Amino acid sequence: MIRLVILGNGNVAKHLYTAFSTKEHIQIVQCYNRKGLSFDKEQNKGLVTTNLDDLKDADVYIMAISDDAISEVSKKLPFSDRLVVHTSGSTPMLEIDDKNNRGVFYPLQTFSKDKDVDFKEVPFCIEAENNNHLSLLKNLASILSEKVYEVSSKQRNILHVSAVFVNNFTNHLFTIGNEICEEHKVPFEILHPLIQETVKKITEMPPNQAQTGPALRNDQQTIERHLNLITDNSQKEIYKILTEAIQLQYGKKL
Amino acid sequence: MIRLVILGNGNVAKHLYTAFSTKEHIQIVQCYNRKGLSFDKEQNKGLVTTNLDDLKDADVYIMAISDDAISEVSKKLPFSDRLVVHTSGSTPMLEIDDKNNRGVFYPLQTFSKDKDVDFKEVPFCIEAENNNHLSLLKNLASILSEKVYEVSSKQRNILHVSAVFVNNFTNHLFTIGNEICEEHKVPFEILHPLIQETVKKITEMPPNQAQTGPALRNDQQTIERHLNLITDNSQKEIYKILTEAIQLQYGKKL
Repeated sequence: MIRLVILGNGNVAKHLYTAFSTKEHIQIVQCYNRKGLSFDKEQNKGLVTTNLDDLKDADVYIMAISDDAISEVSKKLPFSDRLVVHTSGSTPMLEIDDKNNRGVFYPLQTFSKDKDVDFKEVPFCIEAENNNHLSLLKNLASILSEKVYEVSSKQRNILHVSAVFVNNFTNHLFTIGNEICEEHKVPFEILHPLIQETVKKITEMPPNQAQTGPALRNDQQTIERHLNLITDNSQKEIYKILTEAIQLQYGKKL
Repeated sequence: MIRLVILGNGNVAKHLYTAFSTKEHIQIVQCYNRKGLSFDKEQNKGLVTTNLDDLKDADVYIMAISDDAISEVSKKLPFSDRLVVHTSGSTPMLEIDDKNNRGVFYPLQTFSKDKDVDFKEVPFCIEAENNNHLSLLKNLASILSEKVYEVSSKQRNILHVSAVFVNNFTNHLFTIGNEICEEHKVPFEILHPLIQETVKKITEMPPNQAQTGPALRNDQQTIERHLNLITDNSQKEIYKILTEAIQLQYGKKL
């Protein structure tokens, strides 16, 4: 049995709570958040506290809180020599106060409040200061997921930067595509299969081998026509910068 | 029975040939390309010509050739009043010479040479000058795909611009993510589930509602740390421009 305390009540805290609360070898002994909110109706109100000084004994304290709060909350914990982990992609493990044993339990996925998460496919990036705690966190992550990676703080940072490109920025490109379609009353769903194929390809070949389009072909006529069609300045700038980047990259190699 | 002539031997020509050649109600009466190449070993050499003047009679002539060549090749066709279509996303239907009946048969997907295409999920955007030919092209597309859309040249242009954002540019972001991982010896595959979820989300909610990340949160500290980690100038510029674009878009709305 692994006894957990979950701190925080954002998306990650909520989804970890939901996933762990049904697992046999897990006992969620307590949840902490400043407002004393329960995660769901079934949760025993007595197991939610707003007071860090009331925290019960547990094997792992999971701080699923905002990056800014990690250092401060870890300092306020009223105990020492226990295992305290955060769930952040971009915060070094060592930002956790060193009175406790430190670790990281980072689920590399994008979470929405109202959308259920199937953790089986979510990669967990874990880190700890010693092998015992590393094993414990590996076991804990394996209860939820088939994909558990030991990742250093430095590597995690790298993954986080890459994630911004492949998730946040990609999503913004989808938003632009959607806006252009809406502006001209063309259904965006016509593009869904193309988007799905774009993603399918990168699991089958390196993404640079999957590159196509007017920028790669140096098709100046199409590029000009596209730029004339785009009315929004921010969209126009992004079109230009990414076209130049593709030309720079593949022009070099040709 | 619909009798086809396929002109061209690029990816689109090849995949259309492969898909149509197994269909019952289709007869590929001839293929044209400048080098006289067959699409596969089974293809009867006698049905490939390098001479436009030898083109046989058919119901539809599909010009799956480069955008630049559409006007010129259509002028050289030695017949008139037949149905001649191109497969381009960004070329107006009216670039086809008006001695023939003109149409568009545009499969909106990204094709690779060595990767089989399941046309069932590929949206076909079709256009024609009259209702009879529109019906004929609809029937033809329906033999391959469940998704057939009647799309004007103007709308097709819009789709093509959007496709550049959601496919070409997105793929370049994947390339950058891959490069950053490779540079620091972190396996890019850890990011595959995140990428898959990013795409899954847009079929479930508008992409602007799925936006997350440091730019949206205006998390200046993380943005600075990321910019310090990125060594490549082109990557750095793209990071800055897309971060600003996200801040501009959601800053406005907040």
